[in-house]
Amino acid sequence: MALLDDLKWRYATKKYNPSKRVSEEKIDKIIEAARLAPSSYGIQPVRVVCVSNQEIKKYMVPVAWNQRIIADCSHVLVFAAWDNYTPERVTNMFDVTTNEREIPQGSAFGSNTDNIANSHYKMSTEETIRDTERQACIAFGLAIAQAAELKVDATPMGGFDKFALDDMLGLNEKGLKSVYLLALGYRESEGDWMVNQKKVRTPKEDFVLKLN
Amino acid sequence: MALLDDLKWRYATKKYNPSKRVSEEKIDKIIEAARLAPSSYGIQPVRVVCVSNQEIKKYMVPVAWNQRIIADCSHVLVFAAWDNYTPERVTNMFDVTTNEREIPQGSAFGSNTDNIANSHYKMSTEETIRDTERQACIAFGLAIAQAAELKVDATPMGGFDKFALDDMLGLNEKGLKSVYLLALGYRESEGDWMVNQKKVRTPKEDFVLKLN
Repeated sequence: MALLDDLKWRYATKKYNPSKRVSEEKIDKIIEAARLAPSSYGIQPVRVVCVSNQEIKKYMVPVAWNQRIIADCSHVLVFAAWDNYTPERVTNMFDVTTNEREIPQGSAFGSNTDNIANSHYKMSTEETIRDTERQACIAFGLAIAQAAELKVDATPMGGFDKFALDDMLGLNEKGLKSVYLLALGYRESEGDWMVNQKKVRTPKEDFVLKLN
Repeated sequence: MALLDDLKWRYATKKYNPSKRVSEEKIDKIIEAARLAPSSYGIQPVRVVCVSNQEIKKYMVPVAWNQRIIADCSHVLVFAAWDNYTPERVTNMFDVTTNEREIPQGSAFGSNTDNIANSHYKMSTEETIRDTERQACIAFGLAIAQAAELKVDATPMGGFDKFALDDMLGLNEKGLKSVYLLALGYRESEGDWMVNQKKVRTPKEDFVLKLN
């Protein structure tokens, strides 16, 4: 099935069957799609916390505006982004890159790796988070596509208390900020008001402007 | 070919063959993947400007840090996000939704559409742009996946002067802010330093934390 068909198939599932679990093999593929996402200069300031523990999911419900989706779904992926570009983080990623490519240290991204690194250290906290969370969203998009290809139901969720979730999952100590959640599982069509709703998108002529 | 294989195949192309054009059919599929992206409450604050006009692409080169990619590639997709949630925009999208679904006006998203709309109008400009550009990035991720499936080479680009580009393309008057560019075309392997580089990603054990 082509990606466009997968994207037409998917919808923001509103009710999950709590007894149907997604296999770890499928979960790993969804996470792998996110891991393969492109990032600025290959620095990859994105991480995923994968929560299937039912106790933790239950604790997450009030944090996620009391949405039962979190409790009933199989897994919740928390997409998180670095809160800071530290020399340790950036040079580590550059060193991983040069090691894997067996090229000289400092040449991870053409000849100006130092300049690239320095430009990142100069960003304010606000600039950094805005920059890293955008990259987390690209990875998030790829995970949504991968779930659809595997016919795993998913709900992209922005409605949660980020500060509370970061605190609960200890993300601050890891230098991460939560961005979006992706609930994964299998739909319980009965009681899901969204399941039979027509997918509505911005009309093509409004969505794109072509300058040919 | 499965999505994961497509994602392994793709790379940030650094040199394009200027005489190879991508068919409009493929371009339209890539834009369609972006159009199908999920958004918060279905409000869809994302638009795409598709530039294939060579004069305009040439003008864009200095704006994009003098990267020749822009001139040599076939098409450039400019992903843009609303700079404001206005009542006109939000209620229009809700009305499009209720019309298409043939359900009562005001019921686009459960019973609390007015509350949802009002919560958007309260956002500051900074909050709005941060919110809308995150959604543009999800659509951007889906377009990247779709290009890879079609074996169209692509370069996700964040390195450009957003203010200059918005000005040049008249995005301000449309109430839009540019977020990322996606250059599309076909690689010219000779002279592309990236083409044979091993894809390096954050090791799996660092990328994901599983709470089982």
